[in-house]
Amino acid sequence: MSKTYFYPPADLHQYIVDYFVHWKVPAEDATLAADVLLSADMRGVDSHGLIRLSSYYGSRLRKELIDPLSPMQVINETATTLAVDAGNGLGHPVSVRTMQCCIEKARKYGVALATVRNSNHFGIAGYYAMLALPEDMIGICFTNTSPLVAPTHARKAVLGTNPIAVAVPAASSRPFVLDMATSIVPIGRINVYQKEGKEIPSGWGVDAQGQVTKNPAAVRAGGALMPLGGPELLRGYKGYGLSLMVDIFSGVLSGAAFGENVGNAAQDKRSNVGHFFGAIRIDAFRAPQEFKADMDLLLSQLRQAPKAAGEDRVYIHGEKEFEAADRAAAEGVPLSEATVKTLLDGGKIDGTPFDLEPIKVIEE
Amino acid sequence: MSKTYFYPPADLHQYIVDYFVHWKVPAEDATLAADVLLSADMRGVDSHGLIRLSSYYGSRLRKELIDPLSPMQVINETATTLAVDAGNGLGHPVSVRTMQCCIEKARKYGVALATVRNSNHFGIAGYYAMLALPEDMIGICFTNTSPLVAPTHARKAVLGTNPIAVAVPAASSRPFVLDMATSIVPIGRINVYQKEGKEIPSGWGVDAQGQVTKNPAAVRAGGALMPLGGPELLRGYKGYGLSLMVDIFSGVLSGAAFGENVGNAAQDKRSNVGHFFGAIRIDAFRAPQEFKADMDLLLSQLRQAPKAAGEDRVYIHGEKEFEAADRAAAEGVPLSEATVKTLLDGGKIDGTPFDLEPIKVIEE
Repeated sequence: MSKTYFYPPADLHQYIVDYFVHWKVPAEDATLAADVLLSADMRGVDSHGLIRLSSYYGSRLRKELIDPLSPMQVINETATTLAVDAGNGLGHPVSVRTMQCCIEKARKYGVALATVRNSNHFGIAGYYAMLALPEDMIGICFTNTSPLVAPTHARKAVLGTNPIAVAVPAASSRPFVLDMATSIVPIGRINVYQKEGKEIPSGWGVDAQGQVTKNPAAVRAGGALMPLGGPELLRGYKGYGLSLMVDIFSGVLSGAAFGENVGNAAQDKRSNVGHFFGAIRIDAFRAPQEFKADMDLLLSQLRQAPKAAGEDRVYIHGEKEFEAADRAAAEGVPLSEATVKTLLDGGKIDGTPFDLEPIKVIEE
Repeated sequence: MSKTYFYPPADLHQYIVDYFVHWKVPAEDATLAADVLLSADMRGVDSHGLIRLSSYYGSRLRKELIDPLSPMQVINETATTLAVDAGNGLGHPVSVRTMQCCIEKARKYGVALATVRNSNHFGIAGYYAMLALPEDMIGICFTNTSPLVAPTHARKAVLGTNPIAVAVPAASSRPFVLDMATSIVPIGRINVYQKEGKEIPSGWGVDAQGQVTKNPAAVRAGGALMPLGGPELLRGYKGYGLSLMVDIFSGVLSGAAFGENVGNAAQDKRSNVGHFFGAIRIDAFRAPQEFKADMDLLLSQLRQAPKAAGEDRVYIHGEKEFEAADRAAAEGVPLSEATVKTLLDGGKIDGTPFDLEPIKVIEE
C-alpha cells in the first residue's frame, strides 16, 4: 500500500521557484529550473523531478557545491556553434539558454550545435530537445553523468548512464521524443528491487567480478550497470559504444569531466558535468509540411503493425509521457509518498516548508 | 573445414572497378564504390564487402534496377546543409561525394549535415563517417534499410537494421569508430545459424507470433529481428527508438522511402534507400590537440578498467577493424570460400571472370 498525492501544477511550480530563490538562485533561473523539474513529474519521469529538489540540488546548494548565481560564460562561438562554461551553476537554466541559442542560430544557418562544460545535473534531457519542436526543428540533447556503467569485458563502472534525447515534430501525430539512458536501467531501478527484496532480471547489472548477477545488492556493492544490450552475446558493446559516444560529445568536446571523473551527488567536489545540444531546421532539407505528413505515415505504420501475442498496442517514443502530462494537467501532478516525504523533510531543513494542499490522495 | 583465400588489396580493387565499369558505371564512380567495398573486407566486415558484388549490386544492375550512371542531383542547398537525390544510382559514389561536401561546408561553417534520397545499399556506414577523421572533424552517418526489425509489441518487421556510425579522432590512440546496426544482429547471422543447424541465442529474433524464439527458421519465416536490447524487460524499446530515429533522419528527412516501404534486394522495384551524413569541426568547440589528448585519456580509462573474470581486454569501437585492416594490408585480404564462390559464379554470369591468384589459402 502506498499513497500518491496530486497537486496543482502551478502550485508545485511556485514552490520550486521559491525554493531555489531561497538558495539565492536568481528568479529567472529558478523559473527555468522549475519548468524542467515540474515537466519531469508531469511526464511521469518522477526519478528526475521533485524527488531531487532537496536531495540533490538543495544538498549541493547548501554545501556551496553549486554556485546559485550560475555565472555562465560563452567560451567559443561561431555562426553555427557555441561552447559554454556553466560556472558550476544549476544545469537547467544554462541548458535552456544554450538550447534556445542553438535554435536561434539554426533559424539563420539551418543547423547549430552547442556544448556546455562545468555544469551539474540538468534533469530530463528530453526537455531541451523538445524546445525545438514548435520551431519545426529537430532537437538533440546528450549529457554525461557520473560513472555507473561497466564497458563490455570490464567489471568497473567507467561510463555514465549518458542519455540520448531526440525530438522530431509530426503533423497530426504527437512528436517522436526519444529520451533514453544508454544503460538498460538507471541505478534507481536497482535500488527499488533491493528495497523490495526482489531479484533483478538477468542482464541489468554485474557484480564486483563483472559477472551478470540477479542480486541488486551485488550491483550496488562494487558492481555496475550493464549498457543497453547487456552481455556480449546480445551485443551490449553497442550500448557501451553509445554511452561512450555521448561522453565524447558531452564531456570531451565541451572540455568538461568525462569517464570516471564526472562527479556524483555524494562527492564533496564540483561535478563538472558536460552537455551537448543540437537544432536542425527541417526546411533546409524539405518542406516541413511534407516532412510532418511523412512522419505521421511512418508512425502510423508502427502503430498499425500486427501485434505480438498478448500485446495490443505499439507505442511511439514519448507517447506515454505526453499522455501522462495531459492527465497531470487535468487531475494534478502525481507525487509518490517518498517524494512528498523528501519535500517535507527538505523543507524543514532548509526553512522552506512544503505546505501545499493536495487536490486528492490515492491509496493503492 | 573451410578455406580462406588471401588476395592483394590492389588486385581486388581493380577487379571491382572493372566489374562496375563492365556494367557501364563511370570509372570514377566505380573507383569510389571499390574503395568502400574493399574497405569492408579489409576491416573484417565481410558481410558488407565483395560477397555483395554480384549477388546484390550485379544482380540489380543486370535487371536495370540500379542506374549505373548515378545521375545525382542537388535538391536543396544552404551554407550548412545539402539534400541530394541519388537518381537510383549506386549508393557508394553519391555517399562519398555527399560526405565530402559536408566536410567542405563544415570547414567553412563549423558543422554541416546532408541527406540523400533515391539511393541504394551503400556498404559500411563507418566508411563515410571516417572520411571526417583526417580533417580533425567528427563524422556521422546513418542509413535506412529494408524492414527486418519488429518494433516492441509487434510481430511484423517494419523497421530496418538502420545503422549508426560515428567516427571521432584521437591523438596517439586509434580513432573511435562506432558502426553498429540498431538490431541485435543482422539477418545474415540468423542465416548462418540456420545453415549450421544451431539454435540462436534467446533475444535475437521473434517468430511469426512475435514471441522470442531460438529457432532461426522461425525468424526467417514470417518472424523478425529484435532491436538492440531485445525484449521489453531488457529495454528493447530503446533499440527500437534508435532504429526509428535513424529512419527519420535517413528516410523521412531526405524524402526517401521509410519504414516498410524501403525496398530490398529481392524486389523488382527501386529501393529508394535514404542516407544521412554529418561533419563537425572540433576546433569550433575547443583546440583539436586538447580534444584529442582528452580522447586518449578517456579511451585509456576504458582500456585500463579492471577486467571481468575471464576477460583480458576492453575494446574500443573500431579497434578490431583497424587491426584487421593492418593484417589485410600485410598478408592480403581474406575472402571466405563462400565469397570466392559468388565472385566465380557472378563473374561467369556477367562475363567478368574472377581469375585473381590468391597470395595464400588457409584451411581450418
